[in-house]
Amino acid sequence: MTSFASFADLRAACLDLPSGDEAAAARVAAREGTLTKPPGSLGRLEEAVEWLARWQGMSPPRLEAIEFLVFAGNHGVVAQGVSAYPAEVTAQMVANFAAGGAAINQLAHVVGAELRVIALDLDRPTRDFTEAPAMDEAEFLEAAAAGYDALSPDADLVVLGEMGIGNTTAAAAVSAALFGGGGPRFAGRGTGVDEAGLRRKQGAIDQGLKRHAAVLDDPLKLAAALGGRELAAILGACLAARHRRVPVLIDGFVSTAAVAPLKKLRSDALDHTLAGHMSAESGHRFLLQELELSPLLDLGMRLGEGSGAAIAVLVLRAALACHTGMATFAEARVSGKDG
Amino acid sequence: MTSFASFADLRAACLDLPSGDEAAAARVAAREGTLTKPPGSLGRLEEAVEWLARWQGMSPPRLEAIEFLVFAGNHGVVAQGVSAYPAEVTAQMVANFAAGGAAINQLAHVVGAELRVIALDLDRPTRDFTEAPAMDEAEFLEAAAAGYDALSPDADLVVLGEMGIGNTTAAAAVSAALFGGGGPRFAGRGTGVDEAGLRRKQGAIDQGLKRHAAVLDDPLKLAAALGGRELAAILGACLAARHRRVPVLIDGFVSTAAVAPLKKLRSDALDHTLAGHMSAESGHRFLLQELELSPLLDLGMRLGEGSGAAIAVLVLRAALACHTGMATFAEARVSGKDG
Repeated sequence: MTSFASFADLRAACLDLPSGDEAAAARVAAREGTLTKPPGSLGRLEEAVEWLARWQGMSPPRLEAIEFLVFAGNHGVVAQGVSAYPAEVTAQMVANFAAGGAAINQLAHVVGAELRVIALDLDRPTRDFTEAPAMDEAEFLEAAAAGYDALSPDADLVVLGEMGIGNTTAAAAVSAALFGGGGPRFAGRGTGVDEAGLRRKQGAIDQGLKRHAAVLDDPLKLAAALGGRELAAILGACLAARHRRVPVLIDGFVSTAAVAPLKKLRSDALDHTLAGHMSAESGHRFLLQELELSPLLDLGMRLGEGSGAAIAVLVLRAALACHTGMATFAEARVSGKDG
Repeated sequence: MTSFASFADLRAACLDLPSGDEAAAARVAAREGTLTKPPGSLGRLEEAVEWLARWQGMSPPRLEAIEFLVFAGNHGVVAQGVSAYPAEVTAQMVANFAAGGAAINQLAHVVGAELRVIALDLDRPTRDFTEAPAMDEAEFLEAAAAGYDALSPDADLVVLGEMGIGNTTAAAAVSAALFGGGGPRFAGRGTGVDEAGLRRKQGAIDQGLKRHAAVLDDPLKLAAALGGRELAAILGACLAARHRRVPVLIDGFVSTAAVAPLKKLRSDALDHTLAGHMSAESGHRFLLQELELSPLLDLGMRLGEGSGAAIAVLVLRAALACHTGMATFAEARVSGKDG
């Protein structure tokens, strides 16, 4: 069992990161250049296979053991009337995941992935961040360690998803704390809050930023003060994936906000991740820009659970099938360019 | 065997189109509203399932028999030095398709689709359109009929792809003839032509537009004068799909240009199609805008063969799995919005 003794201990783990395997990536690129297609004509598919090889340290890379980790948490800030759904929906949806009835269950089946749902103290919501830090140091570190330990070391790829009524408010607060712009820049409709709810949401975020102004220069402390257990767990899982050479597909706004503090701590900390999709949640676009992440898909989705990233796995599978299965120009006796 | 007696005969078939089944689409929408997710939160996935139901006339729709049709043709305009590859590559790639070595073979395998490649008189290229009409009426109608007959009536979905050295030049000429802007607007790098080649390509297109000015107000005649056999066949297959209630995924620039004349003939003629992806070929963006088609994917691909649309099939599969497999709020006992 991993445990982080302090913010400083976790920070040290976040700063001590392995690099990618450039030789493996180069072997992929070299083979791509020989395949029966104009160079580069598979676009992001080619880049994605290189990326997989770089972070798995293996050429060709492998996409057999796919893991979907979905972390769930509850949020004290829902007391501010920031969500269209009542807080009990978090636990009800966790039950729905267990029964196989949610979107992510169907997508895990399509992908052939193992879905694991980790509910984090649902009966003990974080504190309302307009009034107090959402989590204290020990609570935050415990959630991060739970995420760190949730990852199977033998996964070929992991999708990091979440469920938590109120968590787009937490994600927006963390994003604004890291990158500025306040509630108006990062607050969106979430599960579908109305105009008045959106104003309450923006107001709550701005109040939280003001209350926790003293820690806003510390990416981990601000994540504890404004975030949530499921966000902390995603951060931990993303860190574990880097340490264990498992490429990560980030999902939507909450999943992205959860890993954003890692990038503030070290500019290359998210190089082993790929943004699975662009969420329709309005703040996601700005957050991806700040993180210099270019999403693979843009399908107008805004469900969370890892659902957008799950679909991105299918694109990676297609990319890998082309890379490993295609004939070379020589094998197929096809004339080359300007031939 | 279908045969079209004249341009007028084919035009009549293009104007006589069935409507979609709005009742089937409405049944999909009604079920979507009951599933355990915020309304609309699966974005384009929800729209896609409605679209499939509308054009299959069936709720839920079905994605079992997927057909990839890849039409190949050769182009006299390659004499103008418009391509980075020699013309014999068309036949070599058809052999590569037969041997299973091309990208589309791998993608058909991933999707579980039937791939059928129809080579259209490869040893008899179209005429160089800078000097004469690429095809006469009989040649054009024969290719359109070949496409019409290639579609299996029991397909649940068809992907329309192509292969043909020089065919982005033909596609750009057809696009410019339909929508204006000349060579500079629609000519791109194709398989990777250099700067001088791009200028030759633009020049050839503008020369073709000038030579065939007399037929530019007739969508079918201009497609004969400037297009290619594989483009005509795609037009025929797309028309057959409408008549037989088979939804169509269009692929990249060439595939889209091939069906564009249908839209000029009748504004709702492409409602049974979905643009699988946005190609990196520069003219595709403008062409999709003209056709009011919003591509599902944007992966920087520019290979043709149906490869982008093939990946879009995976998105549709994921969408359908969510639609048919998810629990309703009532089944899962999850509280509703503002509950």
